[in-house]
Amino acid sequence: MSQSSFGKKFTVTTWGESHGKALGAVIDGCPAGLPLCENDIQKALDRRKPGQSRYTTARKEGDRVEILSGVFEGKTTGTPISLIVFNQDQRSRDYGNIACSYRPGHADYTFDAKYGFRDYRGGGRSSGRETIGRVAAGAIASKILSEIGVSFLTYTKSIGPVTAEHFDPDEISRNPFYMPDAEAGKAAGEYLETCMKNQDSAGGVIECRVQGVPAGLGDPVFGKLDALLAQAMMSIGAVKAVEIGDGTAVSQMKGSQDNDGFCQKDGRIQKLSNHAGGIMGGISDGEEIVIRVHVKPTPSISQPQNTVTCKGEEIALEIHGRHDPVIVPRAVVVVESMAALVLTDALFSNMSARMDHIRRFYRETE
Amino acid sequence: MSQSSFGKKFTVTTWGESHGKALGAVIDGCPAGLPLCENDIQKALDRRKPGQSRYTTARKEGDRVEILSGVFEGKTTGTPISLIVFNQDQRSRDYGNIACSYRPGHADYTFDAKYGFRDYRGGGRSSGRETIGRVAAGAIASKILSEIGVSFLTYTKSIGPVTAEHFDPDEISRNPFYMPDAEAGKAAGEYLETCMKNQDSAGGVIECRVQGVPAGLGDPVFGKLDALLAQAMMSIGAVKAVEIGDGTAVSQMKGSQDNDGFCQKDGRIQKLSNHAGGIMGGISDGEEIVIRVHVKPTPSISQPQNTVTCKGEEIALEIHGRHDPVIVPRAVVVVESMAALVLTDALFSNMSARMDHIRRFYRETE
Amino acid sequence: MSQSSFGKKFTVTTWGESHGKALGAVIDGCPAGLPLCENDIQKALDRRKPGQSRYTTARKEGDRVEILSGVFEGKTTGTPISLIVFNQDQRSRDYGNIACSYRPGHADYTFDAKYGFRDYRGGGRSSGRETIGRVAAGAIASKILSEIGVSFLTYTKSIGPVTAEHFDPDEISRNPFYMPDAEAGKAAGEYLETCMKNQDSAGGVIECRVQGVPAGLGDPVFGKLDALLAQAMMSIGAVKAVEIGDGTAVSQMKGSQDNDGFCQKDGRIQKLSNHAGGIMGGISDGEEIVIRVHVKPTPSISQPQNTVTCKGEEIALEIHGRHDPVIVPRAVVVVESMAALVLTDALFSNMSARMDHIRRFYRETE
Amino acid sequence: MSQSSFGKKFTVTTWGESHGKALGAVIDGCPAGLPLCENDIQKALDRRKPGQSRYTTARKEGDRVEILSGVFEGKTTGTPISLIVFNQDQRSRDYGNIACSYRPGHADYTFDAKYGFRDYRGGGRSSGRETIGRVAAGAIASKILSEIGVSFLTYTKSIGPVTAEHFDPDEISRNPFYMPDAEAGKAAGEYLETCMKNQDSAGGVIECRVQGVPAGLGDPVFGKLDALLAQAMMSIGAVKAVEIGDGTAVSQMKGSQDNDGFCQKDGRIQKLSNHAGGIMGGISDGEEIVIRVHVKPTPSISQPQNTVTCKGEEIALEIHGRHDPVIVPRAVVVVESMAALVLTDALFSNMSARMDHIRRFYRETE
Repeated sequence: MSQSSFGKKFTVTTWGESHGKALGAVIDGCPAGLPLCENDIQKALDRRKPGQSRYTTARKEGDRVEILSGVFEGKTTGTPISLIVFNQDQRSRDYGNIACSYRPGHADYTFDAKYGFRDYRGGGRSSGRETIGRVAAGAIASKILSEIGVSFLTYTKSIGPVTAEHFDPDEISRNPFYMPDAEAGKAAGEYLETCMKNQDSAGGVIECRVQGVPAGLGDPVFGKLDALLAQAMMSIGAVKAVEIGDGTAVSQMKGSQDNDGFCQKDGRIQKLSNHAGGIMGGISDGEEIVIRVHVKPTPSISQPQNTVTCKGEEIALEIHGRHDPVIVPRAVVVVESMAALVLTDALFSNMSARMDHIRRFYRETE
Repeated sequence: MSQSSFGKKFTVTTWGESHGKALGAVIDGCPAGLPLCENDIQKALDRRKPGQSRYTTARKEGDRVEILSGVFEGKTTGTPISLIVFNQDQRSRDYGNIACSYRPGHADYTFDAKYGFRDYRGGGRSSGRETIGRVAAGAIASKILSEIGVSFLTYTKSIGPVTAEHFDPDEISRNPFYMPDAEAGKAAGEYLETCMKNQDSAGGVIECRVQGVPAGLGDPVFGKLDALLAQAMMSIGAVKAVEIGDGTAVSQMKGSQDNDGFCQKDGRIQKLSNHAGGIMGGISDGEEIVIRVHVKPTPSISQPQNTVTCKGEEIALEIHGRHDPVIVPRAVVVVESMAALVLTDALFSNMSARMDHIRRFYRETE
Repeated sequence: MSQSSFGKKFTVTTWGESHGKALGAVIDGCPAGLPLCENDIQKALDRRKPGQSRYTTARKEGDRVEILSGVFEGKTTGTPISLIVFNQDQRSRDYGNIACSYRPGHADYTFDAKYGFRDYRGGGRSSGRETIGRVAAGAIASKILSEIGVSFLTYTKSIGPVTAEHFDPDEISRNPFYMPDAEAGKAAGEYLETCMKNQDSAGGVIECRVQGVPAGLGDPVFGKLDALLAQAMMSIGAVKAVEIGDGTAVSQMKGSQDNDGFCQKDGRIQKLSNHAGGIMGGISDGEEIVIRVHVKPTPSISQPQNTVTCKGEEIALEIHGRHDPVIVPRAVVVVESMAALVLTDALFSNMSARMDHIRRFYRETE
Repeated sequence: MSQSSFGKKFTVTTWGESHGKALGAVIDGCPAGLPLCENDIQKALDRRKPGQSRYTTARKEGDRVEILSGVFEGKTTGTPISLIVFNQDQRSRDYGNIACSYRPGHADYTFDAKYGFRDYRGGGRSSGRETIGRVAAGAIASKILSEIGVSFLTYTKSIGPVTAEHFDPDEISRNPFYMPDAEAGKAAGEYLETCMKNQDSAGGVIECRVQGVPAGLGDPVFGKLDALLAQAMMSIGAVKAVEIGDGTAVSQMKGSQDNDGFCQKDGRIQKLSNHAGGIMGGISDGEEIVIRVHVKPTPSISQPQNTVTCKGEEIALEIHGRHDPVIVPRAVVVVESMAALVLTDALFSNMSARMDHIRRFYRETE
């Protein structure tokens, strides 16, 4: 059993492998009447496309998306939207030497353990290219959210030991790392040069902040907003930790420090601080939602590593080919996409939370 | 829409409020033929029961569980197992003063925002008592897992700034904090006394290590084992961060440090290290699974806090009544229970992963 | 794996066996703010309660329902509603002789084949008492539906060869068979007397008509309204066929006879006929929804029947004890309840079908 | 919300419209190691392809399927299988005149009522072409089932008033109607000629018989095998009734007639008759499973029909273009496909029904 669908009301099913014919997603449960064209989706895909800087893989992929169904006369019809991206630059020979050995830090061994064999070309389904479907679907979710006033600010918080200390939103798109701090961006570049020289790789931290989320989203107790965000984030390959709001820091705080008080401001109830990161008891509280994910260093490195072949023979493996020395920058849009999927689903689920709202809804749509 | 069910094949539905008549869980999908009695479940519930030390609430609850269905002649029948725990010590008067104000750090405001009103008695559904259903169900999951050789070691890693530096498994049950380090336990007690004196509260870190998990569990890409563990953990009230294996530390590591090499040992393929925490590509790799959760300080503190009433009036609120100065120790078994639920579900899902296994299964059960 | 939950947004989980301690249901996803008391549910349960006429089992059960959670100050809170009915008259000795033989027409053999053993007391989970949870949950669904103007008319269309030829809605509650035709009711009674004298039993047909369903409910292609109604109905024990609208008759009709034309009437589009039974392409069309189910005769009969013991020994079995000579009248409310569950779920699902409705919803709830 | 996925463990998501670029399906949860090539699927698609006789639409579609993912070196990998069929002969002009009027018997009106507008080209998503995804997925399910000894016999039982009285399995593929009776096939052809001459259409009955299903499949109480088959069948456009075993006839039978006795034969327990159609209490009993579906006449007829435009104007509509005078023959493989999907899902679900089987499974796969 694989589990390639995500979301209960706005459901995304992704498919495809690194070196197969194509990758794609089917979006089920998209409301009718949303204006949608391929460019809406392409813009998001371009943010994760390889080959945009010297710090990403040299693989050449245009990653052009095509809408195959669910859109008519420029608007969604309410039926499933099928999206496809054809693979173009599948140089399988690059990966020939790893067909029968287990790369450290990769899923080669576990796929074999589970399925008995694997599509070893470029990591198959466990490749980062799998996220194409997520980003394509996330772009649609983001468009829905933007129509009710939700917006995202997602960026690289740190690469290896280099952390963004300042926050300038305009800077995010100006450096190849999507860091909101020009100096940190420069330092990150230098750090990566050293890593590359040493045939090594780096990890980092991505932060996603969401504004304009209405209070009330999230469904206790297992569909809490933070619980679903955690699943969404941890399902991204290479993510090893997820934090909401103050995250790991709360374990050392006292109640008097961590609690967010309330006040009355501008005619509505607001919080005096936001340690909680916009989610209380698993439900959005109307403040900014803050998510942080920790991404491990790219496992593909070209220095020799100890491993075994499928037959258990011990070898020293050198992985050559085309790899990102850090995947964090390209994962920024993936994090944002997953957050958008969770929020859209929560948005729809929430519509039947109150009997008075249901009554009004059906009175008005009559 | 609430979401009170968890798991696809081994499905738990929990219900109940802090001050309602009772709380419980329905377990659907439990295989037939598992020996099960109330005591199997009671042992787990006793680990979270209040009133076991001076560091937990003074509320008196026996938390006796009763099996209402699904067990016949000492064995599960394959039909839904209904479990119930009646509330006994619901002193609602304790909570009268919070009926119409929003306690900082609690879900009062968000429940009102979502549902239009709330059961304010003791936090209603957002109370920690909600975890009774999780622990009761988790006990059954743990029993299933133990039959195939899976075992748990779950403990408090830190309370506030006090971290367990040594690891002595026997010590875990000897101190009221479930810490594997006697000295740290003593220091934690002292730290908590200071918090209590200051009408304040503390958070902490819980670590769960799982041995004997067969390689191959977990279903990419959205049902990855770590993704579902993250959802499970973050769905526990007060948890604000989840880590797998080296967790947040990976973002500062290099590929050469983080990658786990492979070797051939004792006739089978093993890993040379376990930075990944037993999960690669979302699938268990046969090594110990390591999960860490960060728990925020108890939000109920008796020092005055700024907040508003339901009508938006600003007030200084003092919360009296019966509260734990730290919930970490009682949450240890909740973390273990949620891990057990995830693993049991993954165990069952995995059975249809390979055609040769399916063929053999049906040949043998004919 | 058992599957004891039904519905995606309004989800019901039922549990309990014929001779266990209790039976019940957990309703998850009920909107907050619905006025609800035990009597709302009791009225529905009383329609299926045994012992109301000489044509039902002599088992004495008050079937009193208790609400354990999810309701506060007379209104639903949006959290799971747990309902329980304790068994009272479990005379297990009645069933002793069937512990080790397979009753024809019952699920004894298949439960053993699947689960390895079974709770043989009164059929265990496969007993008709399992429907208590469905009816209790259905009562809440019906209450929700009534708030938006949906109402039900459910009755016995035929018992054995006796069919109701006239339709007088007032008559339905006047005869023990819930037939809308007094004469047919009388004839049905006579037919059943003969069956009982011959130690035999009878089946029949139940028809459910639903008024006031808004056009637009149902989710193609697998969640079509008729598809979910078919699942719901066929999941009731003893149902062997389900029809929508003209049902089986359509296979012999021509397109010109079966097609429902449209007209403009009273300012809105209406249909000229209703062969489709209110559902077109899996979506409600605003006309009356018509469902018919065919119920097999009670399998428990006291004349000797050929069967085998669990060990394969051939025997002639006589089933004594307390049985209904026909279950149709008591199943009327079960059919209605299942229809209500399907419609409520479809009602909630439909709320996110259109972008303009979503925009308006969130603008108005701000 | 649309619901385009079916099955819990073997999950199919279909997408695509009659006149869009393509149609397809994603199969999630297919076990690894199943030999699979495009021809396995093509053979099933060819059974529903248009243009095979003078009794089907003149639309020219090769309906060539392409596998885009999930298969490597001739075997499934356990990852999602994406299948695509490009549309070729979309003569949208044929449908221009129905863009703004509601065809009787079609889903035009209900799609508008639900979604606010619709893809009117050829019925859009509500077209019979939607079943391409079902058939493609069903072919994979059938291949899995055949590996454990399950086989299908599906045929046309009747067309309009013409019923197959004899049963010759070899005859099924010899006539354009898939009837197991040569004479009936001839009579059906004559009946259809008359219908066509009168610009009218016909319905019919399809019967599906499944051999070799192991006892024990099906998950009470809502995932009963017959309940899921009913949903599956009723989700096929134009199906208005579903019967299992003796179906509608049971309502007039007595218990003594309908009950299937048991005997001991060839070393195993068997039934003396099969009125139940192979399913008892929602679980397969090891005998032949018998399903019957009633299909309505093709709604597209060219004689004038009363209807309204989208604006409510009353008109007489004549539908010209390319239509099947009866869809029953082409729906035969659709019925079989849906049955295969249900059975495969039940096959996988059943693997975790017993603790002893789970223990053995994990002992053997170690």
